[in-house]
Amino acid sequence: MADDDIAELDLDRGARRGYPEAIYCEGKSVDQVAAIAERIARRPDVTTIFTRADEAKAAAVLAVLPDAFHDPVARALVWPPRMPAPSGESVLIACAGTSDLPVAREALVTARHLGRRAELVVDVGIAGLHRTLAKLDAFRAAGVIVVVAGMDGALPGLIAGLVSCPVIAVPTSVGYGAAFSGLAPLLTMLNACAPGVGVVNIDNGYGAGHLAAQIAAPRG
Amino acid sequence: MADDDIAELDLDRGARRGYPEAIYCEGKSVDQVAAIAERIARRPDVTTIFTRADEAKAAAVLAVLPDAFHDPVARALVWPPRMPAPSGESVLIACAGTSDLPVAREALVTARHLGRRAELVVDVGIAGLHRTLAKLDAFRAAGVIVVVAGMDGALPGLIAGLVSCPVIAVPTSVGYGAAFSGLAPLLTMLNACAPGVGVVNIDNGYGAGHLAAQIAAPRG
Amino acid sequence: MADDDIAELDLDRGARRGYPEAIYCEGKSVDQVAAIAERIARRPDVTTIFTRADEAKAAAVLAVLPDAFHDPVARALVWPPRMPAPSGESVLIACAGTSDLPVAREALVTARHLGRRAELVVDVGIAGLHRTLAKLDAFRAAGVIVVVAGMDGALPGLIAGLVSCPVIAVPTSVGYGAAFSGLAPLLTMLNACAPGVGVVNIDNGYGAGHLAAQIAAPRG
Amino acid sequence: MADDDIAELDLDRGARRGYPEAIYCEGKSVDQVAAIAERIARRPDVTTIFTRADEAKAAAVLAVLPDAFHDPVARALVWPPRMPAPSGESVLIACAGTSDLPVAREALVTARHLGRRAELVVDVGIAGLHRTLAKLDAFRAAGVIVVVAGMDGALPGLIAGLVSCPVIAVPTSVGYGAAFSGLAPLLTMLNACAPGVGVVNIDNGYGAGHLAAQIAAPRG
Amino acid sequence: MADDDIAELDLDRGARRGYPEAIYCEGKSVDQVAAIAERIARRPDVTTIFTRADEAKAAAVLAVLPDAFHDPVARALVWPPRMPAPSGESVLIACAGTSDLPVAREALVTARHLGRRAELVVDVGIAGLHRTLAKLDAFRAAGVIVVVAGMDGALPGLIAGLVSCPVIAVPTSVGYGAAFSGLAPLLTMLNACAPGVGVVNIDNGYGAGHLAAQIAAPRG
Amino acid sequence: MADDDIAELDLDRGARRGYPEAIYCEGKSVDQVAAIAERIARRPDVTTIFTRADEAKAAAVLAVLPDAFHDPVARALVWPPRMPAPSGESVLIACAGTSDLPVAREALVTARHLGRRAELVVDVGIAGLHRTLAKLDAFRAAGVIVVVAGMDGALPGLIAGLVSCPVIAVPTSVGYGAAFSGLAPLLTMLNACAPGVGVVNIDNGYGAGHLAAQIAAPRG
Amino acid sequence: MADDDIAELDLDRGARRGYPEAIYCEGKSVDQVAAIAERIARRPDVTTIFTRADEAKAAAVLAVLPDAFHDPVARALVWPPRMPAPSGESVLIACAGTSDLPVAREALVTARHLGRRAELVVDVGIAGLHRTLAKLDAFRAAGVIVVVAGMDGALPGLIAGLVSCPVIAVPTSVGYGAAFSGLAPLLTMLNACAPGVGVVNIDNGYGAGHLAAQIAAPRG
Amino acid sequence: MADDDIAELDLDRGARRGYPEAIYCEGKSVDQVAAIAERIARRPDVTTIFTRADEAKAAAVLAVLPDAFHDPVARALVWPPRMPAPSGESVLIACAGTSDLPVAREALVTARHLGRRAELVVDVGIAGLHRTLAKLDAFRAAGVIVVVAGMDGALPGLIAGLVSCPVIAVPTSVGYGAAFSGLAPLLTMLNACAPGVGVVNIDNGYGAGHLAAQIAAPRG
Repeated sequence: MADDDIAELDLDRGARRGYPEAIYCEGKSVDQVAAIAERIARRPDVTTIFTRADEAKAAAVLAVLPDAFHDPVARALVWPPRMPAPSGESVLIACAGTSDLPVAREALVTARHLGRRAELVVDVGIAGLHRTLAKLDAFRAAGVIVVVAGMDGALPGLIAGLVSCPVIAVPTSVGYGAAFSGLAPLLTMLNACAPGVGVVNIDNGYGAGHLAAQIAAPRG
Repeated sequence: MADDDIAELDLDRGARRGYPEAIYCEGKSVDQVAAIAERIARRPDVTTIFTRADEAKAAAVLAVLPDAFHDPVARALVWPPRMPAPSGESVLIACAGTSDLPVAREALVTARHLGRRAELVVDVGIAGLHRTLAKLDAFRAAGVIVVVAGMDGALPGLIAGLVSCPVIAVPTSVGYGAAFSGLAPLLTMLNACAPGVGVVNIDNGYGAGHLAAQIAAPRG
Repeated sequence: MADDDIAELDLDRGARRGYPEAIYCEGKSVDQVAAIAERIARRPDVTTIFTRADEAKAAAVLAVLPDAFHDPVARALVWPPRMPAPSGESVLIACAGTSDLPVAREALVTARHLGRRAELVVDVGIAGLHRTLAKLDAFRAAGVIVVVAGMDGALPGLIAGLVSCPVIAVPTSVGYGAAFSGLAPLLTMLNACAPGVGVVNIDNGYGAGHLAAQIAAPRG
Repeated sequence: MADDDIAELDLDRGARRGYPEAIYCEGKSVDQVAAIAERIARRPDVTTIFTRADEAKAAAVLAVLPDAFHDPVARALVWPPRMPAPSGESVLIACAGTSDLPVAREALVTARHLGRRAELVVDVGIAGLHRTLAKLDAFRAAGVIVVVAGMDGALPGLIAGLVSCPVIAVPTSVGYGAAFSGLAPLLTMLNACAPGVGVVNIDNGYGAGHLAAQIAAPRG
Repeated sequence: MADDDIAELDLDRGARRGYPEAIYCEGKSVDQVAAIAERIARRPDVTTIFTRADEAKAAAVLAVLPDAFHDPVARALVWPPRMPAPSGESVLIACAGTSDLPVAREALVTARHLGRRAELVVDVGIAGLHRTLAKLDAFRAAGVIVVVAGMDGALPGLIAGLVSCPVIAVPTSVGYGAAFSGLAPLLTMLNACAPGVGVVNIDNGYGAGHLAAQIAAPRG
Repeated sequence: MADDDIAELDLDRGARRGYPEAIYCEGKSVDQVAAIAERIARRPDVTTIFTRADEAKAAAVLAVLPDAFHDPVARALVWPPRMPAPSGESVLIACAGTSDLPVAREALVTARHLGRRAELVVDVGIAGLHRTLAKLDAFRAAGVIVVVAGMDGALPGLIAGLVSCPVIAVPTSVGYGAAFSGLAPLLTMLNACAPGVGVVNIDNGYGAGHLAAQIAAPRG
Repeated sequence: MADDDIAELDLDRGARRGYPEAIYCEGKSVDQVAAIAERIARRPDVTTIFTRADEAKAAAVLAVLPDAFHDPVARALVWPPRMPAPSGESVLIACAGTSDLPVAREALVTARHLGRRAELVVDVGIAGLHRTLAKLDAFRAAGVIVVVAGMDGALPGLIAGLVSCPVIAVPTSVGYGAAFSGLAPLLTMLNACAPGVGVVNIDNGYGAGHLAAQIAAPRG
Repeated sequence: MADDDIAELDLDRGARRGYPEAIYCEGKSVDQVAAIAERIARRPDVTTIFTRADEAKAAAVLAVLPDAFHDPVARALVWPPRMPAPSGESVLIACAGTSDLPVAREALVTARHLGRRAELVVDVGIAGLHRTLAKLDAFRAAGVIVVVAGMDGALPGLIAGLVSCPVIAVPTSVGYGAAFSGLAPLLTMLNACAPGVGVVNIDNGYGAGHLAAQIAAPRG
């Protein structure tokens, strides 16, 4: 196939219309991340999200793109630092607390930069049921809910049984022993008794935020 | 939240507004399924889906509810046999072929009885890329796509890279050896390179159809 | 300890004082079970529980011990068929429904024949939270709670967060796909966010009932 | 249950009556632990246990709460440093030696701060049977026994066969190779031949101590 | 080694001097087993053990070799049915009871037909410690001990701590749930705290009996 | 085969005719690698490839063999630094990007030093299908293709469905969470729907390059 | 994309030029296999291989295509029953014996119907090294070797160390216990010490034969 | 056994007659190891082996017991540094090379300090069959062989097929990817086609040397 022949096939662009590019930093060296930032600096027309950028890699990005938006808890950067005006349904992100925050905030940053109104509620959890139920109105007002949970991973199934909107479940590697680095909550979420739960990879806040933004996208 | 505030909580009804009940038949005896059907016969106001009903269990249901809708390939029955008028976005279900059909049709029956316009396309697959690309217009016209795949489970990630709507991925236990009863496609789907994929349990056509119907539900 | 000191050791009797013997039938042939029943017929002073006795094995036991107590759902028989007068704290056993009943009833039969007041509540589950919460008073009145659950196995952790008594969690092999024959609920229960949960083997209703009876035993 | 009936539900308070709060430090940064300690300093009415606090995190807690009780081997701190007067049955904690001590002492600290009389015996183990049997009288005098073991994890089942009280088994990640970070002793304990064993997560000394304290709690 | 030197190599014969051949029947059809028996009938100079021969396959062997020794519990046949005069050290085989008998007897038949004095003791087990300790003299008199155990698999490690001879540990698939078809006892045995334990494959009574016979072989 | 016949066997030399020796550095200390390099310095007649040599080990090799060929990205060194004149069919190596480069380049270095014409194409991937299809002519011109992929590992199966030459698939440990250090792409590749895929170990670029060179070797 | 647009993209045909289609029968009902055979009967221009066809499914195929080639041991049928004249290099298939024969013969049938000269040698195995070495000349004369092995799966690595041609390794589910349905030989083969081994799925004789035929294909 | 009969039981001493004590250092801190060394310094009548002592821990032991025997490659120390006069059969230890040396030497040190004549042969391996066969005479002269192997772990089965003495197989964590930290060679060894192989834990050179010394012990 000559390259010319693909002209009519729009295999790529359409898929991402309006959605940012993403650079996953974890498998790359600081130098490689810096080199990628240089290349990106030449494309201000495309929004790019850097994910899993630890302190050193974030610094490397900021050295090249000093005005980039940076959320250190989420380990995420966005450049150019423009946030689209929110449209579509609202996205609610829920997690139990401090340890799940990096993943939850990665979902938050992603959903917002894909153009959704997104909020984060912390301190819900199956072991403190009254705190979760106190948020019931907020859960029911959302267009889609992202639930981030480690350890037993029971929260998404509980919430899915209480609402009618879709729930995106994100298992995290928070926990120890028989949590097996996120395997336990992953299995729990896949086996949730209530229907309406779609699961993403362990610690994949970016994927959850992206999927939530697609679900909540404005309709033609 | 003061304890008094819980009085207004509606913990159950709202969650299922308009959605059918489901009876999972696999872990139950024929007699138990029959007994449940008797009880359901007294509630014609609620739509009930019987899932994973093999021939003997389907016969037991039909003995009690002779007018129930029955899709033997999907191993599903619905009673009362009314299909809601379709509303919301359309649901497209895709699978590779004969072996994945029971799961794919279970998703189809579910989505339709939750009130969505839903179609099934068979004979797409990563090993015959031209057949998949030939369906690209249909994929791009859908509001949500359910992709059912066993063996390597690569199809959902491929499709998610070509469209902008959400993709629900259903791994199946089709395959042998290192497919490990669906573990291989499950892992593949959780690791899909393209964002926008939410995964449900192995062979869970019902859950996929339900989640797709929720995503594609009409908006207030 | 000098070696001479071992003379006083009572290595066996004390451990089982007042507790029945158990015969696990699953790994044995019908003939072997019958032969064991013959031997037991000569020891009416000891109470024996036959567990995991399918129809054929139960018939073999009843042929030898026709007055044995038989709970076919629990797949359990007890001979001599005497139930001790209940003492100690009460045991509450909870499960979600039809499919978990064999395991839950095995726990019930065991706890009662070890001398506890024991009740079974069915139809609680995390996907129908209001039904679970409706039983809250009963949960809080119990001395120990046995929670039997398959699929996501989230129920024991939820209940442990609501009560102050110990919770014994029994994962079941009910479920399919990524439930991996009980592995998923087993991991969920081991990772329960609320403390106060002790876990037994998958489908081990006998062990759960036994442990519950020990916990609830009257105190000297 | 009519929805109105929930008004009386006390979903949280009752569950923890008299039991301390716990802060799991492992998934949190030193800064986050310090911030939590600040918040806790304002609630001297609640006892709080900090678990899995390494040297740096313990120092951070002590900087804020200098009078906190600190057991460095257990990696645990308690504030306010008051120990309740012991009530209920006694708790015996057993482990094989040096490597299991952190987990065993975490159970000890927890049981004591939940109000139980608790003792720790070290240097028992299945490979030195005479040392274990020399402790038989102590085992039989306990109201509940916590057995902490890595490698083959055979000790809890051995002890459960010798006593009539409940045994809480804690697998540890001590070992190498086919111990698979605690998986081997976890499986051993779940399959213990003697009934009467409840298992908690790998290395979960806190959970074991908590469950033991609940089992041994004084009865109304 | 120069290539010329290989001329003297005797790659096969020496390895098996005096030891029988073995036919593993499980992966073969009844017809294939019969055909193999025909071939073996022409080699009365070699002793052959048929292992894992269920009723139908045993009948097929006996149709061809009617005088073969047959132990139906062990599912083993030997032809010609000659037992060598015992030499070397004695082999003791121990198991807990009925369910482990097929594997234990397979080890017994094998050790005896490799020329060792071999005995089987049943009804030892870690849950009934006094029964095991009652056999201590017999254990200490053996040249090598084969311990067959399912479920928690703790018995070989216990015995190895009490004797000075080698212990061969055979995990069995007896058990359920988290025994995972023999994985649990396999891991337990590999992690035995006492040194002196060599492990063979799950249910591999033949291999254990063979290895025991080699260890106990008379010395030049 | 009579034993005398082995005299002519050439068990080693023939197997490697013309192929370099390899030293796997990962399991060795810097000192051990240096000592091996000393020994190799005395054998300039044999080409040796050092694989998995991190910076320190590469430095140790270069201290002894300063003229060695060194590809730091591939973590490989070759000495003597001679590249054979290419013969046979051409080898094409494909990977998605930066993170897979070390493995892909290890395959490249290996194939070239075994005497093949080998090229590397980067930036193909299933999530950007148009970029992959743009390389279709190159894929179809190759004698054998090595596809290096982490995460979902779907690329080799996709390419194998588009070409008629053999495909060597190399899973990498690139990814996180449910990629389980390369297990996910390994299973995907073993279950590829299209025939024509042979899989090597996770991250085994050396093995892939070697196998590709053997497949593409000139024919007698 | 309109279907017309793909006219220039030859995504499929080229990939299979000259290679048969394959129908995997295991996941399909007898009726479905019969229906597929009907459709195939209308395409005598394409060669089709039916794999994993048990007796009933083979009968269903033969009822529609009575002249189909049928190898019952391989559980394979080919229609039209024409074998291409052999071209390219020769393929040697090796296995240890009776139990591995179905997989080995599936590879044989496949390689021959893809146009290669292919032979099968049985009764080689690592436990009888002299029998394997006796075949060394045959191994060295082959263009590619397929090695089929269950249990420890050590044979492919042994052979790869003795020859210079590529080796395709096929793990089989033959074995028991810790063979884990083929997992053990699969891992062994992926970790083979000698380079030059490509692995296919457990029991995948078809895939191995196909890949071997591609490797040995005549060169332009 | 009447309870009185236990008085004569010697549960511990006999088991270890003449065998050293062992201190496993890996799970202990440097301080704890030093404290243990202090205690041991008071018991010169007992030989003690320190295993898994890295540089810092070895230094701590040597500070207390300066004349201890120290093998840094084996990471082992023995005190008092007396080697018993060799008795019984000879022990041969074999491994492939540099990476397996620590485990092999640990076995060597152990066997020698338990009183056996023991030798180590390096540079045997299944990928260089001629080097292994060159050692055949040495293998056949041994009373017991310990084979240490990582990666595919095929060597013990190969050797067991060539000798008549028992083989102790030690899988090592040497390898990468699908070796899964020693799981692959562990499974290979458990599934060895040749009988006569007993397996110990991954990297357990101490256990292998101990078991070998027991097997080769002089007979009464």
